[in-house]
Amino acid sequence: MITIAVDCMGGDIGPSATLPACAAFLGRHADVQLLLVGQPQALAGWSQVVNNVRCRVVPATEVVTMDDTVEVALRKKKDSSMRVAIAQIKEGAAQAAVSAGNTGALMAIARYVLKTLEGIDRPAIATQLPNARGGATTVLDLGANVDCTAEHLLQFAVMGSALVAAADRRENPSVGLLNVGEEVIKGSEVIKKAGVLLRNAANTGDLNFFGNVEGDDIFKGTTDIVVCDGFVGNVALKASEGLAAMIGGFIREEFSRSIFTKLGGLFAYPVLSAFKKRVDHRRYNGAALLGLRGLVFKSHGSADAFAFEHALARAYDAARHRLLDDVQSRIAHAAPLISGDVTPSDLRGIPTL
Amino acid sequence: MITIAVDCMGGDIGPSATLPACAAFLGRHADVQLLLVGQPQALAGWSQVVNNVRCRVVPATEVVTMDDTVEVALRKKKDSSMRVAIAQIKEGAAQAAVSAGNTGALMAIARYVLKTLEGIDRPAIATQLPNARGGATTVLDLGANVDCTAEHLLQFAVMGSALVAAADRRENPSVGLLNVGEEVIKGSEVIKKAGVLLRNAANTGDLNFFGNVEGDDIFKGTTDIVVCDGFVGNVALKASEGLAAMIGGFIREEFSRSIFTKLGGLFAYPVLSAFKKRVDHRRYNGAALLGLRGLVFKSHGSADAFAFEHALARAYDAARHRLLDDVQSRIAHAAPLISGDVTPSDLRGIPTL
Repeated sequence: MITIAVDCMGGDIGPSATLPACAAFLGRHADVQLLLVGQPQALAGWSQVVNNVRCRVVPATEVVTMDDTVEVALRKKKDSSMRVAIAQIKEGAAQAAVSAGNTGALMAIARYVLKTLEGIDRPAIATQLPNARGGATTVLDLGANVDCTAEHLLQFAVMGSALVAAADRRENPSVGLLNVGEEVIKGSEVIKKAGVLLRNAANTGDLNFFGNVEGDDIFKGTTDIVVCDGFVGNVALKASEGLAAMIGGFIREEFSRSIFTKLGGLFAYPVLSAFKKRVDHRRYNGAALLGLRGLVFKSHGSADAFAFEHALARAYDAARHRLLDDVQSRIAHAAPLISGDVTPSDLRGIPTL
Repeated sequence: MITIAVDCMGGDIGPSATLPACAAFLGRHADVQLLLVGQPQALAGWSQVVNNVRCRVVPATEVVTMDDTVEVALRKKKDSSMRVAIAQIKEGAAQAAVSAGNTGALMAIARYVLKTLEGIDRPAIATQLPNARGGATTVLDLGANVDCTAEHLLQFAVMGSALVAAADRRENPSVGLLNVGEEVIKGSEVIKKAGVLLRNAANTGDLNFFGNVEGDDIFKGTTDIVVCDGFVGNVALKASEGLAAMIGGFIREEFSRSIFTKLGGLFAYPVLSAFKKRVDHRRYNGAALLGLRGLVFKSHGSADAFAFEHALARAYDAARHRLLDDVQSRIAHAAPLISGDVTPSDLRGIPTL
C-alpha cells in the first residue's frame, strides 16, 4: 500500500480540483491510501472522497496563498496544509506529498522540514515536457536555483537520472547538458566545467552523458534528461508555454474568422481534438522536488482535477519504484566526483574564447 | 539611394537563395543598389540579377563555411565573401551588409573590421519573434555573449531600443528584463543589479523600462524589447524553434492518419495555410548585429529566397532610418549610466534570498 499526503487546499482552485482528482485516482489504483490535508470544513462538501475507507482527513488550520512570501509561509503559517502534508512524510505516515501551492514556499518548507540528502547542496525541480519522439524529456532545474555551480549541475544530472530510471522505468537514461552549441568549447565557464564533471561521471559509469544539447533538443527528445540551471530552465519552460499559448490562440482565431473557416473547423474537429490531446500540458503535470529526504511533488497552480490527478500519479510512481533509495544510492556512488574539485588538467584542451 | 552589400555565398543554400532574393528585393524597392559579393563564376548563372543596372559584382575568392572556426574565418580566409561584404561598409561603399553565413565568424569579422561603437563593450545579436498581439518582440542578446554583466544588459537595452525605434518606427519602445519572476527581488545577482541600472536609466529618461518579464512574455508581447544574456536568449529561441517544429509535425501527422483526417485537412486547408503564414518564421528572418560601427544583418543559415529577402528588408529599413546614428546618440546619452558603477545604496532594499 502506498500512502500519499495531499495538500487539498493548494493551487488556484483548491478542494474543487484536488478532491475530485483524489476520487478519480483512488478509483484507478487499489493500492493507494490518501491523507487529505486541509481545513475540515472546506473538505466536508466532498463526502464521497472524505468518507472513502482509503482516505483520512488530516486537519490543518491555515493555507499558504500564492502571494505569501517564503518568510510568511515558513515562519508564520506553521499549521498550513502544505506544511502538515510534508510533515506526514517526516513522521513516516506517508511516502510522498503533493501540493499545487506556491512553489517557493513549497520548496522552502520541504527543505526545512525534510532536509536535503547527504551529498546534495541544493534540491532541484524537475518536470517532463512532451517530445517529438512521442515520449517526454525530463528537464531540471526549473527555477529553484538561479545561480548554479558546475557541481550543482552534476548533482542535478545524477538526481534526474534516478528520477527517470525509477519513475519511468528507463535504465541508464541519457543526460544532455543544455548549452548554446554542441561543441565542448561552447558556453559559459560554469557550463564548460560542468561538461568536464559530467564526462568524468560518464567515464566512471555514474552517468550516461550524451554531451551538450541545445534548446530545440528538449522537444526533439535527443536525450531523456536535460540539465540546466534554474534561471535558464525557468525561462525555457515559460517561453515554451507562451509560444504554445500563442499558437493555440492563432489556431482558434483562424478557425473562427468566418462561416467557411468554422465549417472547415467542424470537418477538422476530430483531428484538432487528437492534436490538442497530444500537446495537453495537463498530462505532464507534476514536477518532482529532488534532493530532499522525502518525495515531494508540485502540481501547477492552475491545475484542474484532470491535471492534479497526473501529479498524484507521478508521486505514486516515484514512491512505488523507490525513487528516494535510487537517488540516495546514485548520489553516494557519485559522491567522490561531486565533492572532488576539477583539477586544471581536466580543463586543459578547452580553449577559452 | 541605399546601398547594401550582400554576401551571396553564405548560408546552406548560397547563390540559389541569395540571388533570387536580391532580384525580388530590387523589384520591390526602386531606391536600392546591391553589391553582390562572391565568386564571380558562382554568380554568373543569375545573369538577370548580375546584369541589373542597380547591381555590381564585387569579387571575393573565398567562402567561409558553416564549419569553419572563427580562427580560420578571421585569419586564413581574408578574401572571403563575408569579409569583403563587411569591408564595403568600412570603405563607405555600402550602408549595410547582409550574410547568411556562420554566426560566430560573422560577428568576429564584423567586430574586427568595423570595431565597436564608443561606449559599447560587446556587440549583441537581436532578432524579432512574433507575438500574440500580432506584432513582433525584439529579443537580445541571442548568443553573442554567454557571460554578461549588468552593464552589458543595460547596453543591450539601449541598443535594442534604438533598433526598434529606428527600424520599426516605434517611439519610446518598452523594455523588459528577462527574469524568473516579476518581483525585483527575483533572479541572479547580475539580473538584480541590471534591474537597478535599468530603473536608473528609466528615471533619467534614457529608457522606457517596464520591469521584469518572464519567458512567456516574449510571445505575449508584453514589451517591445526583451533583454537577456546570450546564453538564456539562445536557449529560449532554440527551445521555441524546437517546440514550433514539434507542434507542426504533430499537426501534419494527425491530418495524415487516415482518409477521413485527410478529408478534414482538405476542408481546413485555407485556415491551416493562413495559420502557417502567420507563424512562418521566415517573415522574421534577419537578426541585427548591434553595437558595431556599421549595420550588419545575419540571415538564418537555412534561409530560402523568401526568408533572405526579409533579411535584406531589415537591413534596408535600418539604413533608411539611420539606425546607426540613433544607436550612437542613445549610447552617448546613456553613457554615464553605463560606465558609472552602481553604488551599494542603489541595491539597498533588495534582500538577498
